[in-house]
Amino acid sequence: MSKQPVIILVGPQLAENIGMSARAMMNCGLYELRLVNPREDHLSDKAISASSNAEEILYNAKVYSSTEEAIADLNFVYAATARHRDQIKSVYNADTAAIEMNKIMAEGNSCGIMFGCERTGLSNVDVSLANAIINIPLNPKHSSLNLSQAVLLIGYEFYKTQIEKPEVHLEMNGTTLAPKDKIIKFVQHFEELLENCGNYRAGEKREKMFINLQNIFTRNQLTEQELNTLYGAINYISRQN
Amino acid sequence: MSKQPVIILVGPQLAENIGMSARAMMNCGLYELRLVNPREDHLSDKAISASSNAEEILYNAKVYSSTEEAIADLNFVYAATARHRDQIKSVYNADTAAIEMNKIMAEGNSCGIMFGCERTGLSNVDVSLANAIINIPLNPKHSSLNLSQAVLLIGYEFYKTQIEKPEVHLEMNGTTLAPKDKIIKFVQHFEELLENCGNYRAGEKREKMFINLQNIFTRNQLTEQELNTLYGAINYISRQN
Repeated sequence: MSKQPVIILVGPQLAENIGMSARAMMNCGLYELRLVNPREDHLSDKAISASSNAEEILYNAKVYSSTEEAIADLNFVYAATARHRDQIKSVYNADTAAIEMNKIMAEGNSCGIMFGCERTGLSNVDVSLANAIINIPLNPKHSSLNLSQAVLLIGYEFYKTQIEKPEVHLEMNGTTLAPKDKIIKFVQHFEELLENCGNYRAGEKREKMFINLQNIFTRNQLTEQELNTLYGAINYISRQN
Repeated sequence: MSKQPVIILVGPQLAENIGMSARAMMNCGLYELRLVNPREDHLSDKAISASSNAEEILYNAKVYSSTEEAIADLNFVYAATARHRDQIKSVYNADTAAIEMNKIMAEGNSCGIMFGCERTGLSNVDVSLANAIINIPLNPKHSSLNLSQAVLLIGYEFYKTQIEKPEVHLEMNGTTLAPKDKIIKFVQHFEELLENCGNYRAGEKREKMFINLQNIFTRNQLTEQELNTLYGAINYISRQN
């Protein structure tokens, strides 16, 4: 039983789009591709070249002569479609579908996602074979996507559910943040240099400027190395170097 | 002050990719494109054709001769890059960056996202101009994206923050679900038909079968119209029609 959804391209027209879909699949860690009556050869030079090193997926792809055969062994199938369909069916966004797929597969079911051909998308009969619809939320004034881009967006949402991702992280490049005392000493040093200039402000204004400087260099999350760079730079411009 | 992030393509090589990036932008409701030293003409036939009806973005695009000029008026700039950089900088996923961008713009700041050229991506100097990095979480074994696909994924995450989207909805096609009594009557009718067959099970097995049938047709969220279709179908196969 597969733990990844199978990608099913129904009647794809262009070899280039089949190749680019394979590339998008590999970007998203998806490897099982099925093709229903592709118009062009999925192993042509055009397809292989467009796959951009994802040709492994093309070589392993299975070709079927009907949608029914292509989905025969699957337990749950989604239809990716941008158009409104006159069918009573649950419609998922790409992200909620991805979460749902994981639940379905965790219970031992296999999953597939069908994509229609470039010109017309999935037929109504193909959509009626699906358990549910995936609709990618996009600008309603311009929601037409290239086939491989539709595969990419849905694959991307699935990939996001497969990884633990840090919300935001600070890239530290092997160093650590400078300890506070070094920041404080640096700001004091900065102020001394300013004092040595002729027209440094006095009193309240000076206090305010000091606090501003302190904030600027504290908020920055400086490393020791960066602090050394700053020391060098301000010493140089103050000609004390 | 723009409420959308500006897309900045630094040194894009192929007209087709510029066009496809414009298409991806329009898919995601983004309209402001800036180009730094594009190698090919962004108004060439190739670019216009690849934009697939998003040529309005290409006609309005501004061309600059340096990254510094292209971002001069912006308050906050992200660098989209897949490669690890030896720079101390916050790294956002595409989704967290989109949320952050909205906060930054809500405070009156303008935002931009820089993308590098197809072959090498952004230079280290260009990355150093950015306030933060956006990294799209993708299969580390195959994270190389086409330029327009990178624009699409980041644009898509931004678009998702702009809309209220229902988690899942059942497409009803103007009808409503059948009231329970009609479902119950239908299951009873089904059972009657079964009784009229010769070898219908009795006792406990029959009770179990009835419950199964009830569950099947209740779980289905049938509409009245579908119920009528079902009546017709089972009556027909039972030759009572």
